[in-house]
Amino acid sequence: MTTKGPIEFYFDYSSPYGYVAATRIEDIGAAHGREVVWKPILLGVVFRATQSAPLTEVPLKGDYSKHDFARTCRYYNVPFKFPAKFPIASQAPARGHYWLWEQDPALAKRFSLAAFTAYFVDGRDVSAPEIAADVAAEQGVDRDAFLAAIAAPENKERLKAETEAALAKGVFGSPFMIVDGEPFWGSDRLPMLSAWLERGGW
Amino acid sequence: MTTKGPIEFYFDYSSPYGYVAATRIEDIGAAHGREVVWKPILLGVVFRATQSAPLTEVPLKGDYSKHDFARTCRYYNVPFKFPAKFPIASQAPARGHYWLWEQDPALAKRFSLAAFTAYFVDGRDVSAPEIAADVAAEQGVDRDAFLAAIAAPENKERLKAETEAALAKGVFGSPFMIVDGEPFWGSDRLPMLSAWLERGGW
Repeated sequence: MTTKGPIEFYFDYSSPYGYVAATRIEDIGAAHGREVVWKPILLGVVFRATQSAPLTEVPLKGDYSKHDFARTCRYYNVPFKFPAKFPIASQAPARGHYWLWEQDPALAKRFSLAAFTAYFVDGRDVSAPEIAADVAAEQGVDRDAFLAAIAAPENKERLKAETEAALAKGVFGSPFMIVDGEPFWGSDRLPMLSAWLERGGW
Repeated sequence: MTTKGPIEFYFDYSSPYGYVAATRIEDIGAAHGREVVWKPILLGVVFRATQSAPLTEVPLKGDYSKHDFARTCRYYNVPFKFPAKFPIASQAPARGHYWLWEQDPALAKRFSLAAFTAYFVDGRDVSAPEIAADVAAEQGVDRDAFLAAIAAPENKERLKAETEAALAKGVFGSPFMIVDGEPFWGSDRLPMLSAWLERGGW
């Protein structure tokens, strides 16, 4: 029996389609016997490299995308409320994620899904370290340790390095999935990703 | 019995995802009792309005999109070969389409699908009036009349007006579908469009 490689799941906590994918990616991995490695990145850095802007700030596309975020979430029966503050800088939860990941990947995933839900359902500004720490504490994480971790230089560096590594692999958006070297951009590519895993490519 | 409104199908002949949608949209319309109104537009004009660029010219996104065009076409069993000249200006086939549409919408659709195939399968540069006219002639259209039509001021104006009208409706890409006022952007939204028609929205 060969070991199947993981699905690398890149996302930014400020990305509505990243949130949609976060609610679905573990089921897809489980259905095809693939681990999912969650990798938060900083879309702001990626957008500078690709000369892009947040969808919501692009003329015409902005109005459409806000409509489509909500419609897509209703389609998948995922709760969603467009946050009053958008987009947000996601360093706090992203640093916390990698710190947790080194201790317990399952806990890191629960935290990250909770951070998405806090932002896109409850409108909590998880860019604020105190609020990110609240979300972590709700998952059983030591609040003070979390706050110390996201301020620690090594965790800042880790996030920078992960974002650079993602860019080097060609990641330019959120969500972005790579499996067996095959890249898939966007929550609307999840059905194709499933088909790819099912068929072993085409 | 109420009359169901049409699916407005906006596209540019230079758009690979527009080509994918063109091979599928009539089946979707037929499955749900909707006419499909084919509306070529000039993406260049749209991109200026939205400060966008062709996907293939964006760093990182460019390589991904070329990979994804081919993969998406294989997924749908649609023949595809990335053209040597890309993108192209699509005034010639677009003007011809509207001229044909006024005479025979079914013929205009056949011509437009043939123009897509000529470009994305056979690598023929349909931006050239002579080649667009060849494609029209292959569908039984009078070649000289076609060439005269695409040079006629009224057909130039028609295309400009259609592109402006599309922009005014919020169309910012190709393919772009509107049905009952509901907008869908991208060939990856076709399954959602089908579901929307099936359920009457959600």
